[in-house]
Amino acid sequence: MTVLGDATPRSLTRAVVDRVRPLRFDLMPEPVRRTAVHCVLDVVGVAVVGSTTPPATLVRAEMFDERSSGPAGVVGDPRRLPAAAAALVNGTAAHALDFDDVSAAMGGHPSTVVLPAALAAAERHGLDGPEMLAAFVAGVETACLVGRLMGPEHYARGFHTTATVGAVGAAATAAHAAALDEDGWCRALGIAATRAAGLKSMFGTMTKPLHAGFAAETGVRAASLAARGFTAHRDVLGAEQGFREVLGGTGVLPPEGAFDILDVLFKRHASCFLTHSSVEGLLRLREQGLRADEVEAVRLRVPPGHLRVCAIPDPTTPLEAKFSLRHTAALALVTGDLSERSFTAESPADPRLAAVRERVDIVARADDSPATEVRVRRRHGPELVAEVDVSVPDPATPSELDRREVVLRRKLLGLVEPHVGADRTARMLTAIEGLPTARTLDDLRAAVAV
Amino acid sequence: MTVLGDATPRSLTRAVVDRVRPLRFDLMPEPVRRTAVHCVLDVVGVAVVGSTTPPATLVRAEMFDERSSGPAGVVGDPRRLPAAAAALVNGTAAHALDFDDVSAAMGGHPSTVVLPAALAAAERHGLDGPEMLAAFVAGVETACLVGRLMGPEHYARGFHTTATVGAVGAAATAAHAAALDEDGWCRALGIAATRAAGLKSMFGTMTKPLHAGFAAETGVRAASLAARGFTAHRDVLGAEQGFREVLGGTGVLPPEGAFDILDVLFKRHASCFLTHSSVEGLLRLREQGLRADEVEAVRLRVPPGHLRVCAIPDPTTPLEAKFSLRHTAALALVTGDLSERSFTAESPADPRLAAVRERVDIVARADDSPATEVRVRRRHGPELVAEVDVSVPDPATPSELDRREVVLRRKLLGLVEPHVGADRTARMLTAIEGLPTARTLDDLRAAVAV
Repeated sequence: MTVLGDATPRSLTRAVVDRVRPLRFDLMPEPVRRTAVHCVLDVVGVAVVGSTTPPATLVRAEMFDERSSGPAGVVGDPRRLPAAAAALVNGTAAHALDFDDVSAAMGGHPSTVVLPAALAAAERHGLDGPEMLAAFVAGVETACLVGRLMGPEHYARGFHTTATVGAVGAAATAAHAAALDEDGWCRALGIAATRAAGLKSMFGTMTKPLHAGFAAETGVRAASLAARGFTAHRDVLGAEQGFREVLGGTGVLPPEGAFDILDVLFKRHASCFLTHSSVEGLLRLREQGLRADEVEAVRLRVPPGHLRVCAIPDPTTPLEAKFSLRHTAALALVTGDLSERSFTAESPADPRLAAVRERVDIVARADDSPATEVRVRRRHGPELVAEVDVSVPDPATPSELDRREVVLRRKLLGLVEPHVGADRTARMLTAIEGLPTARTLDDLRAAVAV
Repeated sequence: MTVLGDATPRSLTRAVVDRVRPLRFDLMPEPVRRTAVHCVLDVVGVAVVGSTTPPATLVRAEMFDERSSGPAGVVGDPRRLPAAAAALVNGTAAHALDFDDVSAAMGGHPSTVVLPAALAAAERHGLDGPEMLAAFVAGVETACLVGRLMGPEHYARGFHTTATVGAVGAAATAAHAAALDEDGWCRALGIAATRAAGLKSMFGTMTKPLHAGFAAETGVRAASLAARGFTAHRDVLGAEQGFREVLGGTGVLPPEGAFDILDVLFKRHASCFLTHSSVEGLLRLREQGLRADEVEAVRLRVPPGHLRVCAIPDPTTPLEAKFSLRHTAALALVTGDLSERSFTAESPADPRLAAVRERVDIVARADDSPATEVRVRRRHGPELVAEVDVSVPDPATPSELDRREVVLRRKLLGLVEPHVGADRTARMLTAIEGLPTARTLDDLRAAVAV
């Protein structure tokens, strides 16, 4: 069985479980613990705003109409739900903006599925902050391992990996929260994987964020049934007619030791992800002292594919502005702010932005590099150059983690403050950043229940 | 688009919806209406006993622990649940014995998924008996049409069709119960199909019946979200990266006009389905006057594959007896009864049965016929011969429907009476057979809530 990445003839599912089940928060490397909190910062911010969108409000109405009650908090609502229902509602809210973190190893969005499952399961089992974060990391690592096991063919076939692989990750987080034994873990992953589903044809409809909710719900339900003794095939990942075989998996497990969560990518700006490399390049030059009024011309050399996605030259609406390399470059230079609130209805016609936009020129790269090259010609002084590829994770050094924390706090503030005000936003930040030592999840639940 | 079976370039999903959405019970042919009631007879009987098995009791505990409440009755329990939860619980109970009806067109078990969804949705919407039955037929027809659209490749890939195609059928039944408009139907089928899942590696575990419950729940949830205005791709069956393409569908829609429900097969006996042709052959000879004590020798000529499944020569346990062509032949000749209660712990060693069993000889057919040939040599008189293939549906003539009704009543009695007693069983039969004119579903719910 070469997919195990070693010669041991044990079950593939057990091989995954054995890696993630023992994870404990206080034994994790510092950058992993910090990154876990960053994921919470990221997802809570987008979920609070996402909870006001139609898919989230419709699913919330659906679940509250069932008059069920339970221990689990709901983002954007003071009432509580059973754990599985809360996972469904919060997963849908978290993915509604499509502004949540991404993992190349998983091939999808890990936290939008795993965090709602982790919070719901943690509240059911009365976990403290570090226990919830450990369950969360276990879920993200499982999603990444299973994503690697599937490889790119799974997504290429038409499966929405966030939904399918996400459900297995959500089961892992809930199994960790429930402290299941190894057999229980394998059965939980089995129940989740056999229910894992999601078709890419749903992209562009409310059902895309619903996939994240369904996956979170599936994981919580699966672990709960497994805890009751429900049986399932114990090697759903490796079995004949199992998850990997039937759903087109072609990948293998990597060697043990690394944490995939360290390579999670955060969307720092509210615009299309493919504008982010040029935005980051310009922000770096800006940090080094570049001012918009000294710019004579900007040339962005981007991978050719980007031109089909985000090259609207003169946007007229906020959504078009998010898909305009020229407009986002102007925003980066003029205000340095590409948060949700920067994309106002007036922004496309803002004369300061339009003036800079006129000076931005876009060309396709001739080579295969996924990076964007930014060249700025100034009125005086030498040309400035930056080359950035945001699909390469930052090194997990203390200074980079500090920098990311600043960006993610700003992202949350930009998203949440206009909705809930400064006081409540501050409480939210305090609750999230206090998770590594929190005795309960009460503060976080109260802060997001708005 | 040749899969439509015609030249019209409309959506494949709409083509399915247009066939089943207009169905009304009083406009259906008499044999369809009678068969619908037969399906209810069949599934309610197996569900009542199934509700006492571990997978059903575990799922019931899971859902009642959520303290939700709703309009939908639960088989084997006097409490009620929200519609989706009731569908989950009842679907799991209905499939727990693996003794429920089968459709070759669907490639799976239609009623075990569709009926729980139909009952739950009907109770939510306060439907009467004919309206519930119409929704049920619409769901079964949809499951069969989608099953045909997928073809055998889908199951061969490892998908459990009862779960996957079943979820789409369940969405159709719930959409019919909710009287959704055509657009709502398409969105409901989209939400259900994108969540449809089930792996064959789960066979032999509690998760197999859970698949039926999940599928029923998925259908009810999907229709409910669609009724709220939730959006989804409107042609999930025909879309690029849609259900048929991603899940390995290779079939086409048949010409309009026929009712696939007429070809549903019922398991009449509690033994392995592959013993049923020989059992039926012997029962026919018995009806014609054959007595066990005049039998000198029985020769069963069966398709070679059967010998790998149900040829245990001298069983010692009830389960082995169910997989013994010789034992089931002896039961057919001696008692004529192969209901659940015939497979007692004592049955394998019963001297009357053992004596006849000794005289049964099994050989493989040399040809490709799926039928079983039964030859009985008697002490006096000419040899008797019968050839039966239970995989060929009975013609839907009044006399065959009468005969089936007798068999299914007897099946329900044999299953249910030992569990709930004669009075309650009689109430159950009355409630089921009264469905075509019932003003409410109260009698049925009360009768099964034990």
